[in-house]
Amino acid sequence: MGLLVVGSLALDTVSTPFDKVEDALGGSATYISLAASYFTGPVNLVGIVGSDFPKNYIKMLEEHNIDLEGLKIVEGGKTFRWAGKYHYDLNVRDTLSTDLNVFEKFDPIIPESARKSKYICLGNIDPVLQSKVLDQMDDPQFVVCDTMNYWIEGKKKELMELLPRVSVLIINDSEARLLAHEPNLIKASRKIRDFGPEILIIKKGEHGALLFTEDIIFSAPAYPMEMINDPTGAGDSFAGGFIGHLYSNRDLSPNCLKAAVIYGSTMASFCVERFSTKGLEELSLFRIKDRFREFMNLSRFDES
Amino acid sequence: MGLLVVGSLALDTVSTPFDKVEDALGGSATYISLAASYFTGPVNLVGIVGSDFPKNYIKMLEEHNIDLEGLKIVEGGKTFRWAGKYHYDLNVRDTLSTDLNVFEKFDPIIPESARKSKYICLGNIDPVLQSKVLDQMDDPQFVVCDTMNYWIEGKKKELMELLPRVSVLIINDSEARLLAHEPNLIKASRKIRDFGPEILIIKKGEHGALLFTEDIIFSAPAYPMEMINDPTGAGDSFAGGFIGHLYSNRDLSPNCLKAAVIYGSTMASFCVERFSTKGLEELSLFRIKDRFREFMNLSRFDES
Repeated sequence: MGLLVVGSLALDTVSTPFDKVEDALGGSATYISLAASYFTGPVNLVGIVGSDFPKNYIKMLEEHNIDLEGLKIVEGGKTFRWAGKYHYDLNVRDTLSTDLNVFEKFDPIIPESARKSKYICLGNIDPVLQSKVLDQMDDPQFVVCDTMNYWIEGKKKELMELLPRVSVLIINDSEARLLAHEPNLIKASRKIRDFGPEILIIKKGEHGALLFTEDIIFSAPAYPMEMINDPTGAGDSFAGGFIGHLYSNRDLSPNCLKAAVIYGSTMASFCVERFSTKGLEELSLFRIKDRFREFMNLSRFDES
Repeated sequence: MGLLVVGSLALDTVSTPFDKVEDALGGSATYISLAASYFTGPVNLVGIVGSDFPKNYIKMLEEHNIDLEGLKIVEGGKTFRWAGKYHYDLNVRDTLSTDLNVFEKFDPIIPESARKSKYICLGNIDPVLQSKVLDQMDDPQFVVCDTMNYWIEGKKKELMELLPRVSVLIINDSEARLLAHEPNLIKASRKIRDFGPEILIIKKGEHGALLFTEDIIFSAPAYPMEMINDPTGAGDSFAGGFIGHLYSNRDLSPNCLKAAVIYGSTMASFCVERFSTKGLEELSLFRIKDRFREFMNLSRFDES
């Protein structure tokens, strides 16, 4: 029984003005699990792929102590494929194609051994499936949930039913404004927390992230990146670092939550340095802590 | 001899979705001087108004220990007037009218007594005039300069001639990208600092501010504002708080520069709480330091 991660696994074809990769490893569950793997023991991944899913990707995930008992491999099926293109400023991307393939019929079944997990990270999938995951759990105590404008617009009712079961909602600033119907993020945060989640994190890309709880607002800086090679997976890496740190400490105090936001930002900064999951594959806790301290230097000031 | 501030004084007509003011006190020199006045002895203001400029505005400025020897009052002339309208999200504004009036012929003459000032804040005016101010100074040692896209596009050559004489350039993120022809702010900061200013501050509105020097990058959070009543003057208030703190400490160490950025952000946060200069008129150093500490709580985290 460890940390449970549910979401997509994908083969991504990504082009930026600088480079391009084809059928590279992607998907929310992939990035979350890899990022979390540096902080904790086994991560239980639940997802679905086709039999075309490369064996070396399976091997790499297993080498990161990611338990794939919950990974369904559909014989003869094709893995979810996504193709996207980033523009020069890397803040805007066009989706060129989305082939759901086996992911279209994804019906997450949590392995018996993982149903006792108390820390759960729900990657960005249909809120109906996110609820189904929670239905299977014995005693979900800390649920981190990602979603996106597609579900906020298309499955608002189902999302609103899920939110009271969620401890931490992680969304970006435009999604927060959309979900709350409120342009001011401070006001929006209060409305969204009233929907259920005790804790809200608003990611602001190159502007960092905001953490809202009943008692605190915390503003986390963004790492000053000179070279972003591939923004894909940054948000998922954030979620993985965030829940990984909290799970390893079993501590939900304000101080630990703040540190977790910085660890999330740290993992996102590593993620975008290289294409696909490459930036997350060869890290060490030493390097992660080193960058954590860089975040500290970046934002610390004193009275003077 | 104190801190010298040169810029515009204006009568602003501002409407937001919530309220409206007519012929209210405005102008870059006004906001900068008021914000700086809480940190230091007399501020020498150099600017121009018409004889229609209300006496109670003069009185209010003088009560804040702002020396108006350098304020030219053109008999029979009309004061610079600006009218603007903010939209619902307050990030966008339309300029409804700009009547330069006496400001069109502004030719800043620095009073003899102020020429010895070593700390100078050049509000956002024509870079030709900003250079003219520096030409009159005995020994300008620390020059803070604001500019805008209008001058970056229309007077690039004159601005580039000014920049080597500037210690700190304060601009917003879109102006930084425009000036450097570079979308990445970290790269842009290096290019701009190569143009002359040792120190660059990039304001990012609701996302805080970045400070760049040879040795450090500092990311300052934005104050979480639930109610912004009037964004006019926020950038000028930032500049005033920034140079006010540095001038009062005569210290340009990284620690003091970081604190100055937070004091700048603090003054900007007070400014936008009320219309016109109202948010800056009745402060105390106690309240300012209190909000400074709120900024500290907002962004501080520890290893845990």
